[in-house]
Amino acid sequence: MHVADRLVASIAATGSVACVGLDPRPALVPPPVRDAALTRHGDTVAAVAEAFLATNLGILEAVAGRCAVVKPQVACYEAYGTAGWDVLAATVERARTLGIPVIVDGKRNDIGSTAEHYRDAMFGGAPGFGGAAVGAGLGADWATVNAYLGSDGIDAFLDEAGEHGVFALVRTSNPSSADLQDVTAGDRTVAEHVADRVAAWGASRRGTSGLTAVGAVVGATWPDQARALRARMPDTVFLVPGFGAQGGTADDAVAGRRPGSTDPSTAGLVVNSSRELWGAWQRAESPERWQQATGEALDAMNRALAAALGSAA
Amino acid sequence: MHVADRLVASIAATGSVACVGLDPRPALVPPPVRDAALTRHGDTVAAVAEAFLATNLGILEAVAGRCAVVKPQVACYEAYGTAGWDVLAATVERARTLGIPVIVDGKRNDIGSTAEHYRDAMFGGAPGFGGAAVGAGLGADWATVNAYLGSDGIDAFLDEAGEHGVFALVRTSNPSSADLQDVTAGDRTVAEHVADRVAAWGASRRGTSGLTAVGAVVGATWPDQARALRARMPDTVFLVPGFGAQGGTADDAVAGRRPGSTDPSTAGLVVNSSRELWGAWQRAESPERWQQATGEALDAMNRALAAALGSAA
Repeated sequence: MHVADRLVASIAATGSVACVGLDPRPALVPPPVRDAALTRHGDTVAAVAEAFLATNLGILEAVAGRCAVVKPQVACYEAYGTAGWDVLAATVERARTLGIPVIVDGKRNDIGSTAEHYRDAMFGGAPGFGGAAVGAGLGADWATVNAYLGSDGIDAFLDEAGEHGVFALVRTSNPSSADLQDVTAGDRTVAEHVADRVAAWGASRRGTSGLTAVGAVVGATWPDQARALRARMPDTVFLVPGFGAQGGTADDAVAGRRPGSTDPSTAGLVVNSSRELWGAWQRAESPERWQQATGEALDAMNRALAAALGSAA
Repeated sequence: MHVADRLVASIAATGSVACVGLDPRPALVPPPVRDAALTRHGDTVAAVAEAFLATNLGILEAVAGRCAVVKPQVACYEAYGTAGWDVLAATVERARTLGIPVIVDGKRNDIGSTAEHYRDAMFGGAPGFGGAAVGAGLGADWATVNAYLGSDGIDAFLDEAGEHGVFALVRTSNPSSADLQDVTAGDRTVAEHVADRVAAWGASRRGTSGLTAVGAVVGATWPDQARALRARMPDTVFLVPGFGAQGGTADDAVAGRRPGSTDPSTAGLVVNSSRELWGAWQRAESPERWQQATGEALDAMNRALAAALGSAA
């Protein structure tokens, strides 16, 4: 099934447009998990890796069937070297086993011949000496990419059948994103130039849902821009970061929905939350209940997004 | 010592502005190394990883003292998962042992709080539960970064003392780089906007050489642009890809040198070659002599670049 259709199906099955960010950081590990890892390994990379994986697996169990997609942030894993990569790979594998689509958020980019290796890392297919695939890769459904190098670095990630997709950075959620993205070039900002490219790259890569395999990252911190960018990318799935901890409200987060779509599954967006879900135990009565806390935080997020989508329809 | 001064010292000591790209691919592994790995492991990830590492270590031995810097391309390793990351880490470690500065070419980018994790991955410092560093990272001197997210994603990589540096993508060497980089925004192209940012970010981060910790990737395939970009970034180190296999000549490669500098160590650039060095055995009389072939190809590159720098002075 086409990668966009798989995402539509997941939203339809769960009734959720939430993307659960899996961005492990030591300070956010639930205390019981942390203490067990410290007892076994001391304060080492091994302890961090064990705790990250245990938390991820617990969170995946808590969110399965209640979210559209999960999104591990590669940086959080890569910071711990190969031990971190092992956790990332095991996390993606468990998500797939649970039937949850996975966006691996690495914002990779390079010239075409090199981008192919990143594709292999994200989706599998790295060749052996005989030329056949020997590397399984992470097994992601989607990868985030940075489009600064243009089409040849994007094409490398895409396949004829639409088995895998990308989310290209268009308008990010961070304070300094305006440095380059808001620079006006002719009648358009740089972000709008990228948006037009994204729409063009996706046009020949539609699923039966009409949505394409070339998505766009459009931050929840810029709702007016999200609406303007939707006009340029009518059939693009938006990955919306910046909800919650970064300041975006539910209304902001769904500002870029496809106009007129009353069905969340074809609203053309997924909304990410990371810290407020992974670290939900911090607001719980007991840190022992960290899995339940994440599940409850996700339910609250789902209700807020459903209400925002309903009122915007 | 400031990272730019370490690079200047390396150029002065070796007389070379060459950057040896360590971009392993199965088809480029010297046949004797390949055959030994296949015998031991069959056509598997383990064989590829063993062969990549053996070739890298042999090439590092051949180029030590004859190049300014080495540059592993992360994608080539990451394609093989944790086995590949182990090879990358061991390669960087050996380069450091040999006293060769290392640019880890991963073109990483994210919002500030996440970019810090990439910094930890590249340079070390990932925290444990107590907050102190437990992760050694790759131990790179420099990391390549993509500046599409603006200053907060760049600042995260830089430290007060200039211990580590970045090369930000300004004008890349690939065919589709013009898609976005050549779009005109006001009186400047997008690449020129980024160049102006790079110069500004570097201004407060100079070594005693006057060169800064914020370098720029400027492809050898665009010599006219390199000269124009130098005027905007007078004290920026250029990392010049695209020499050799991608079509740039030695004259093209040094087009972006600092005008008036007669000393290669302060010309403000390093020129990368990957396939023509790592795969030099393909043009050798005997594939058994792959290390010598790489050394000889590097010597030829050094002569061509020295001549080009001399004639341009």
